[in-house]
Amino acid sequence: MATILTLAGDGIGPEIMTQAIDVLEAVNKKFALGLTLESGLIGGVAIDATGEPLPEETLTRARAADAVLLGAVGGPKWDSIERSKRPERGLLKIRGELGLFANLRVAKLYSQLANASSIKPEIISGLDLLIVRELTGGIYFGEPRGIRTLENGEQQGYNTMVYSTSEIQRIGKVAFELAKTRAQAAGTAPKVCSVDKANVLEVTELWKQTMIEMQQADYSDVALSHMYADNACMQLIKDPKQFDVMVTGNMFGDILSDEAAMLTGSIGMLPSASLDEAGKGMYEPCHGSAPDIAGQDKANPLATILSVAMMLRYTFKQEKAAQAIEQAVSDVLDDGLRTVDILDRNEEGLKQVGCQEMGQAVLTKL
Amino acid sequence: MATILTLAGDGIGPEIMTQAIDVLEAVNKKFALGLTLESGLIGGVAIDATGEPLPEETLTRARAADAVLLGAVGGPKWDSIERSKRPERGLLKIRGELGLFANLRVAKLYSQLANASSIKPEIISGLDLLIVRELTGGIYFGEPRGIRTLENGEQQGYNTMVYSTSEIQRIGKVAFELAKTRAQAAGTAPKVCSVDKANVLEVTELWKQTMIEMQQADYSDVALSHMYADNACMQLIKDPKQFDVMVTGNMFGDILSDEAAMLTGSIGMLPSASLDEAGKGMYEPCHGSAPDIAGQDKANPLATILSVAMMLRYTFKQEKAAQAIEQAVSDVLDDGLRTVDILDRNEEGLKQVGCQEMGQAVLTKL
Ligand SMILES: CC(C)[C@H](C(=O)O)[C@@H](O)C(=O)O
Ligand SMILES: CC(C)[C@H](C(=O)O)[C@@H](O)C(=O)O
Repeated sequence: MATILTLAGDGIGPEIMTQAIDVLEAVNKKFALGLTLESGLIGGVAIDATGEPLPEETLTRARAADAVLLGAVGGPKWDSIERSKRPERGLLKIRGELGLFANLRVAKLYSQLANASSIKPEIISGLDLLIVRELTGGIYFGEPRGIRTLENGEQQGYNTMVYSTSEIQRIGKVAFELAKTRAQAAGTAPKVCSVDKANVLEVTELWKQTMIEMQQADYSDVALSHMYADNACMQLIKDPKQFDVMVTGNMFGDILSDEAAMLTGSIGMLPSASLDEAGKGMYEPCHGSAPDIAGQDKANPLATILSVAMMLRYTFKQEKAAQAIEQAVSDVLDDGLRTVDILDRNEEGLKQVGCQEMGQAVLTKL
Repeated sequence: MATILTLAGDGIGPEIMTQAIDVLEAVNKKFALGLTLESGLIGGVAIDATGEPLPEETLTRARAADAVLLGAVGGPKWDSIERSKRPERGLLKIRGELGLFANLRVAKLYSQLANASSIKPEIISGLDLLIVRELTGGIYFGEPRGIRTLENGEQQGYNTMVYSTSEIQRIGKVAFELAKTRAQAAGTAPKVCSVDKANVLEVTELWKQTMIEMQQADYSDVALSHMYADNACMQLIKDPKQFDVMVTGNMFGDILSDEAAMLTGSIGMLPSASLDEAGKGMYEPCHGSAPDIAGQDKANPLATILSVAMMLRYTFKQEKAAQAIEQAVSDVLDDGLRTVDILDRNEEGLKQVGCQEMGQAVLTKL
């Protein structure tokens, strides 16, 4: 009997989570998955209730659970709190404490939503790219870090970008393996593009060197290329379909995965998975907590619903149930249902719906 | 009598520099600027000749000159040289040694080239945005840095992202001042967007705080906004015209300025300036050395020619001469001349030309 901990969080978190839980319970029943759901606190709501963005109790229950489903954290209400207590820290801490080093972010274009993008259709039609972001190392976790006062009285801020060979190897392995799985499914040749700034940063020189050694030793069947982060950021705009799997460190991955998501024009559609070494994971939408539309039934619940599909696929190996959800999502799009973020006002036959109506429509399809 | 040191560098550097020098000499004569030109070595060609990517002699002459015009550095030939001797190190070193802390990169859409972009025309038409990148600090220069062997035998790479208040203030000042100048010229209200990752990195928290204090103390007439780097990368794709001046650190600036350049679809058109505290500067195209097309008379010399215009504007305060060059460039585009990188094969009435023909056409217009 497996347990899932749901953490709705802040902003639109609760409303999208409600819809995702309905979907999760429906497939749980339909496919007799035997999953038990629990809920807990993280982010701003946790701060309000306990003073901590990641209370001990949540962490204990997250450790005990087989998977975590997260909504979103943060909002202006908690922006002026002391640094170490902000909602974002709760997110970083749960990633670190659970060892969720492998963050998978898919930038996939739904053909029904091709017009939502600011990119020309021919550049992005059929786009389906996976960014593998290292999530528990690099400059977001590196020590020393802080703000100190210099001898001349002025202040100095500092952070450390650091990676060891073994950290690079374990994320590299995830990327190479996923490239093979994806290529097999698509009937193409597997390829990985590793993104670094090896011409300037020593830490990414080690990154690049380690990727090269891994490819030579264990993945000679996967084509490995390298790109500097600045160039990768350009190439994603110029010709995103040149990529299949991209692998990179925490900070470059943060930036590039958001850029890739925006290429599709519908970040409200994109799920993500953060996995540990045993395949246990935390699943969450790529978008944030959108405090400006919170509580207005405007949010798009599909990224969270698709995160449930990823969870069933990666943690519970329930490919059929995962596909059923993905199909249901595609079906409601075919029916012309759109939350406001993915609504194209120039297109005929669409129906604008709220968060709840969208979630229930997916449920009906299931 | 002012001196300009030209450093052609590698790849397409020499051919684009030849055209830029022709243009520079023409305006020198026409506007009686009294400029003297010298040339020197940097990058791979300098390594081949002296063993160093930035020979002492070049540095001495760069210090003595009033401005430097750079082509591009680097290429596969020098990629396996020991780290500290690579062409890129010469570029970083000259920036650091000359104190060129303010890097100005303009992403401007030439209406004649609107189709070259992969972005939909309505998103980018009229785009004219300035990225102010800090160029001599942050993680590209921070110490400690290196690759070490850990006790357990594996390797660890590390770099340090570091900024002090005064470093942030001097680049902030450049951004605020330029926002005012630009707004005055355009008849709009001045605005600056400062890009950081203050929700995670302490060094950028100091950055954000310092910008806020500057705005309150000295620039209350400039609207200041803040954006996380990952979001900025998305917003540049979604709605780049929301920005006028963006200011950020060395690494985020590297990435965002390349992204912004690619929005225009014609990075072969974009010049940059790197200035010290006295307004002395190094000017260079935003594009790289493009070794794959070097020596084939295919390169676009316009970014380097437009860099000459920036030099005349910022270092020599010769606005008229600068505008004459910019007008001549616009005129050749109006005439339909296109190097291959900006050629739209679906458009009628265009003429594909080489590097030399393009440069000479600008000269004729002058
Ligand atoms: C909220 C923030 C800490 C987080 C990150 O930078 O990792 C977010 O941007 C993300 O990408 O999940
Ligand atoms: C070549 C490299 C060192 C350089 C940088 O990263 O600064 C380049 O990408 C640039 O943006 O000028």
